[in-house]
Amino acid sequence: MAQGERDHAELLKRAPIFADVSERTLKRLATAATVVSCARGDVLFEAGADPDYLHILVDGTVQLATGTPDGREAVVEIIRPVDAFIMAAVLTSQPFLMSAKAVEPSRLLLIPGKAIREQVGADPKLALTMLGSMARQYRAMVRQIKDLRLRTATQRLGTYLLRLIESRGEGERVVLPYDKKLVAARLDMKPESLSRAIHALRVHGVEVADNEVHITDVEELREFCKVDRVLDRLEEDLSTLINSRRR
Amino acid sequence: MAQGERDHAELLKRAPIFADVSERTLKRLATAATVVSCARGDVLFEAGADPDYLHILVDGTVQLATGTPDGREAVVEIIRPVDAFIMAAVLTSQPFLMSAKAVEPSRLLLIPGKAIREQVGADPKLALTMLGSMARQYRAMVRQIKDLRLRTATQRLGTYLLRLIESRGEGERVVLPYDKKLVAARLDMKPESLSRAIHALRVHGVEVADNEVHITDVEELREFCKVDRVLDRLEEDLSTLINSRRR
Repeated sequence: MAQGERDHAELLKRAPIFADVSERTLKRLATAATVVSCARGDVLFEAGADPDYLHILVDGTVQLATGTPDGREAVVEIIRPVDAFIMAAVLTSQPFLMSAKAVEPSRLLLIPGKAIREQVGADPKLALTMLGSMARQYRAMVRQIKDLRLRTATQRLGTYLLRLIESRGEGERVVLPYDKKLVAARLDMKPESLSRAIHALRVHGVEVADNEVHITDVEELREFCKVDRVLDRLEEDLSTLINSRRR
Repeated sequence: MAQGERDHAELLKRAPIFADVSERTLKRLATAATVVSCARGDVLFEAGADPDYLHILVDGTVQLATGTPDGREAVVEIIRPVDAFIMAAVLTSQPFLMSAKAVEPSRLLLIPGKAIREQVGADPKLALTMLGSMARQYRAMVRQIKDLRLRTATQRLGTYLLRLIESRGEGERVVLPYDKKLVAARLDMKPESLSRAIHALRVHGVEVADNEVHITDVEELREFCKVDRVLDRLEEDLSTLINSRRR
């Protein structure tokens, strides 16, 4: 491989879906890939566009949002490195359902949809890994629907903070990974509602100072948010699970 | 194959994900499968349970719902024959996120999770078909989040009716596929709100008499619901698309 391709391959391997693929598949994807950098506020694609590239976020933060023709918008997912996004559209050649915007300076690897679809067809292990990843993404959407339908805004914030703490290990303190306005948008709240929710959570074991969160009473917060530890936990990429079950 | 297995195989082939699998895979799945019948109101499994079987609904109607420990519930999906459900949990061996209940007398084929995972690992074509199906299910969840966040209850009902009409072809009349109470639950509405929404839609080109819906002005209804024809349309199972792109 040339140096550029080797660099691409190194970046690709940091994405969970490509961590275990064969050298052959990795080389083909790396050859087809392009690196792009973008500024804060840049739109990567609009909803309705043809899914030209699988996007892999290498640095930065990207938001995915749905919208209506009258211009209203809802932030559905916030992507952090290193992760592939918009896989469902690319695999099935269907128009993007969401628009993507860089919310800070970001760097991405773009793999042409055709190259991905060919490799998924040619490499059964990649197909299985993608299947595990799609299953995780589906389950994350089911959890989001549950949050929207069965939890108040304050409970959604509490549940979000619990997931954040659990995903970072076992500590009680964590720094919000992006600004509060974006946290509010992701949780279907106005920024002023977020301030009220932060205040309301003080009696349920949460202290927030600037962007630092201290959960002083995890059990109380779980009880208040009606959180089930298994069902409401966010899952890591499940690709390895699918593979391990084949034995 | 014995007669029982041949019957199972015939039923399996009616599910989009198994329509194109090889005879060998079909035989293995049919051998492992069991048919069960259940009465209206029977619970098939609870959220949190281990995903023992992939469920394929052959006759009847099944609802999938999430819930909180204090007993509140939200109906997320309503399954109609012939369709496989709860695929994400079974493929990844993760606990069911939703409970399943038969809302009318139903008949199902159950395939042990282990048999499905083995065949998905052994048959690359099955893996691709499942990947297409998971992608469709993911996209349906994104659309549901959009409906919940950007549409009023009345617009959600209008969007639901437009999808119903489109999925049945090009007519203007359609019969609700299940009772109004279930439609309301699926759309995150109380039954009394559904009555109000039906009334409110009369000036936007919809007449509902009992369970029969007549859309008298599709364009007006689309405009009122802020529906984008491509983005808001429900997709058929996309498995065939993935395969066609491999050429």
